[in-house]
Amino acid sequence: MRYKCIVAYDGTNYYGFQIQGDLKTIELEIITAIKKAFSIDAKIYASGRTDKEVHAKGQVFHFDMDIEVLPNSVKKALNSFLPDDIYILSVEIVNEDFHARFSAKEKEYRYYINIGEYDPLKIHYMPHIDYLDIKLMEEAIHLFEGTHDFKGFASAQIDKRKDTVKTIFETKVNIIGDTVEFIFKGSAFLKYQVRRMMGLLIDIGRGYYQKEKILEVLEKKDPSISHRVAPGCGLYLYKVTY
Amino acid sequence: MRYKCIVAYDGTNYYGFQIQGDLKTIELEIITAIKKAFSIDAKIYASGRTDKEVHAKGQVFHFDMDIEVLPNSVKKALNSFLPDDIYILSVEIVNEDFHARFSAKEKEYRYYINIGEYDPLKIHYMPHIDYLDIKLMEEAIHLFEGTHDFKGFASAQIDKRKDTVKTIFETKVNIIGDTVEFIFKGSAFLKYQVRRMMGLLIDIGRGYYQKEKILEVLEKKDPSISHRVAPGCGLYLYKVTY
Repeated sequence: MRYKCIVAYDGTNYYGFQIQGDLKTIELEIITAIKKAFSIDAKIYASGRTDKEVHAKGQVFHFDMDIEVLPNSVKKALNSFLPDDIYILSVEIVNEDFHARFSAKEKEYRYYINIGEYDPLKIHYMPHIDYLDIKLMEEAIHLFEGTHDFKGFASAQIDKRKDTVKTIFETKVNIIGDTVEFIFKGSAFLKYQVRRMMGLLIDIGRGYYQKEKILEVLEKKDPSISHRVAPGCGLYLYKVTY
Repeated sequence: MRYKCIVAYDGTNYYGFQIQGDLKTIELEIITAIKKAFSIDAKIYASGRTDKEVHAKGQVFHFDMDIEVLPNSVKKALNSFLPDDIYILSVEIVNEDFHARFSAKEKEYRYYINIGEYDPLKIHYMPHIDYLDIKLMEEAIHLFEGTHDFKGFASAQIDKRKDTVKTIFETKVNIIGDTVEFIFKGSAFLKYQVRRMMGLLIDIGRGYYQKEKILEVLEKKDPSISHRVAPGCGLYLYKVTY
């Protein structure tokens, strides 16, 4: 039986999603909870990794288990063994051809910035950046839409054989009080891609670059061109659609 | 010169406001920042203490310093030495007869509860409590208004000589999406008073007690009557008025 799970987490105290030995990671906590609940050494497959301090409102993973357990009982069992800052929102039994990563049709990331006064209660959830011209950022963000080779926005350590052509379906900017919300919906995203796109957008919003810089980075396809990587704490894996 | 400061903090990682030796407390961090900034061993006087994990949006304290420094420079200097989760919002030079505690005319506390689905991103900022009848809580909260002996809502270890008669000017309940906000404005509050009032309100909202239980606790004036103390993480010292 294959179980598809949607999970939310506060990434503040984790070294990201992917397991790294005994370091505190989301994956390690989930595997440990599955072991405690069902006495099996399950391997879990997520829609993708999230970096250190990055949060999730709707990360998806799947795992296989020989026995059939009611989805809601799996949810309750896992949540009872997970720490407070990781929570399974839903569990569903899916066909064997479902794969949390390869079956994903769309991923949605959101990035939040506090543009009001510095707020010590928000530091783990959105960076505080002032003097941003949001109108310039809104004009620029749409240049990311469409199918492009995003190699220029990838991690500098990217595997050269990796396919870096991805499609961004939609981008959007919303201002909610002192918070600015940036939405990216796409087919898939490279490691660091959203944080590097946001980093350049922030530099555009502060007037360091014109929006055409985005086209230049897309064209040069050189991930070593230095530009700001936006802090992980503002990023949320919001939703994965299948 | 007497300096009045308004400070906001995330209480999550602190053992409350009041200094307790080397334990991580808000007061210790502020005193340390003053020492680093101005090389003086200042004593600070706050409007009141806040418990472990309790937050502040507008705590007030004052301290004295022989030299005159521009208020905005004091703000910048202290913030540069304070940790990220404590932030001085404003500094002003006041008369010598100003006292952060004794001059306070009104204190406003707010308490937040998540009544929607469990959210791992909110656990340090509001408890998750479901099955609450907010209408019952709203009817009950107004019974706290007026001048009463709040001894029944004080800490069980309260000093018997302490004056426990306080006035609550106003109470209010607001529902904002999945969040319920409870507002208490009063002359002053006893240790644990807001959390014990909220604890009883939660029991009323869950149907364990009728609202008349509030009148009974006020009348009996016995702080040892057991009722729920609401978690510290949902409480915010919101504003102090002089």
